Amino acid sequence: MATIDVPEQVSVLADAEALRKACKGWGTDEKAIISVLGHRNAVQRKQIRLAYEDLYQEDLIKRLESELSGDFEKAVYRWVLDPADRDAVLANVAIKKLSPDHHVIVEISCTRSPEELLAVRRAYQTRYKHSLEEDVAAHTKGDTRKLLVSLVSAFRYDGEEINTRVANSEAKNLHEAVKDKEFNHEEIIRILSTRSKMQLMATFNRYRDDHGTTITKNLEGDSGDEFLKTLRATIRCLNDPKKYFEKVLRNSIRRVGTDEDALTRVIVTRAEKDLKDIKELYYKRNSVSLDQAVAKDTSGDYKALLLTLLGKED
Amino acid sequence: MATIDVPEQVSVLADAEALRKACKGWGTDEKAIISVLGHRNAVQRKQIRLAYEDLYQEDLIKRLESELSGDFEKAVYRWVLDPADRDAVLANVAIKKLSPDHHVIVEISCTRSPEELLAVRRAYQTRYKHSLEEDVAAHTKGDTRKLLVSLVSAFRYDGEEINTRVANSEAKNLHEAVKDKEFNHEEIIRILSTRSKMQLMATFNRYRDDHGTTITKNLEGDSGDEFLKTLRATIRCLNDPKKYFEKVLRNSIRRVGTDEDALTRVIVTRAEKDLKDIKELYYKRNSVSLDQAVAKDTSGDYKALLLTLLGKED
Repeated sequence: MATIDVPEQVSVLADAEALRKACKGWGTDEKAIISVLGHRNAVQRKQIRLAYEDLYQEDLIKRLESELSGDFEKAVYRWVLDPADRDAVLANVAIKKLSPDHHVIVEISCTRSPEELLAVRRAYQTRYKHSLEEDVAAHTKGDTRKLLVSLVSAFRYDGEEINTRVANSEAKNLHEAVKDKEFNHEEIIRILSTRSKMQLMATFNRYRDDHGTTITKNLEGDSGDEFLKTLRATIRCLNDPKKYFEKVLRNSIRRVGTDEDALTRVIVTRAEKDLKDIKELYYKRNSVSLDQAVAKDTSGDYKALLLTLLGKED
Repeated sequence: MATIDVPEQVSVLADAEALRKACKGWGTDEKAIISVLGHRNAVQRKQIRLAYEDLYQEDLIKRLESELSGDFEKAVYRWVLDPADRDAVLANVAIKKLSPDHHVIVEISCTRSPEELLAVRRAYQTRYKHSLEEDVAAHTKGDTRKLLVSLVSAFRYDGEEINTRVANSEAKNLHEAVKDKEFNHEEIIRILSTRSKMQLMATFNRYRDDHGTTITKNLEGDSGDEFLKTLRATIRCLNDPKKYFEKVLRNSIRRVGTDEDALTRVIVTRAEKDLKDIKELYYKRNSVSLDQAVAKDTSGDYKALLLTLLGKED
């Protein structure tokens, strides 16, 4: 369930005018920006951008970028974009880092639906004139590259049909590779990157039934091993994305020095999807509400936007 | 350019009625079937199927299958299907063979446009409740598997922008791997499966300019090496699909015992695309027209359908 609070009636034109007013003249009215954009869904935000462009011959996103700054600017920018385009930006930023954020690539390729991932790949090409897999391949190497390129290229079957025989035999294949510590075994990558999510859940369940422990537990090891970390993130994203997102949020807040990029990313990408469920998981796991934790760790307009997206009434 | 000859005015209803008449009662009027379906494009064939179903509460494809037989039946079946669905069927048949036809998978993944390949992957899932890459991975192994899974999963950038620097450096990478006979080098697979076709052409041209010979020539070797064969087919499909198709046709006819599957596949899949150009290449290369060669090697209704699709007037 989503967290954002969208009024029943919205006037796109009035919104565009309010945003123009908030940006015009000396100083910017950040509160006004939050009170409009923080309460509009993706379709409405798109219509607002189009209306704004129509009315003022100016790109709303560019205008906001020039008016705002810091974490607030980044969060507004990510929030205003179309979801697929936003994922393309997130993926590009993650890959182009000196030390690429592999888990962002995993997250985008494994927690989005197959059709959503295709839309991201399409948006990526429009924006960067390259394919996503091409850029991932060019900026990674070794086993991590094999895994990531396979994951971003996947177009999984999204239906309900499961083959129990396949689940049994692939649970066995996975266990054999894990037991022999052949974590880079091509069978692991093949299974994780081609099977449907329903099929994989059946396989992971079978693994647990047969071996009394989850595959992710069996994959714990050298914490500095980047490939192993990426592999674990893959399985967690495929198997239980909400639990995965709860953990990303927990880590982003728990650290000395909040990880604003991760915090923004999860809130912005999940606010219209399942952030309500993630909040519940967060509360259960941390005995403090996500709203409170975010409020404690952030400040100013950035804090106000995040809390709005979290559905907290002012 | 296409070869099929479509009349300016078509009545879908009259076509459905003519097909019903051709199928009804004792015996089948194959000529009538050819004279209707052989002169209709993909959109019209689809409308005819829908109209037929509407009028007679019967699936036209199933009816045709039950009326016809042999190579003619196969050719009609493939021709009547939507292009993406047809490719899904061709891919499935190719993979499920005891010794899979790897080049069919290469052909579908490398000669179709990126969007067409996506449509094939979607059609494959609808029909088989699996992803295409999942079935390819499950029925192949080793280096061939790596290559094929990467190729079918590709969603290449389809634009015009080329990076000359990348072309230079990747031509060098390719040459080094080829020179060291490391044909299964992961760089080769990465480059061939992620780069846009325009980019790859620039890279192959650079390779030829730098080394005085084409990469495919440098990849000739052990003719029994299945991976190497698949790799060469990949490069040929990416670099010059028409020339590739000409060769498939030439081999299908030249053999003792015509390869009807290959002959049907190329004619049926290219008749609405570029079969006219392929025919020209064929004539240039073989000093005999493709129509004549096909007429000599085939017979009966099968021959009549192929010649109709080749645009030959009776």
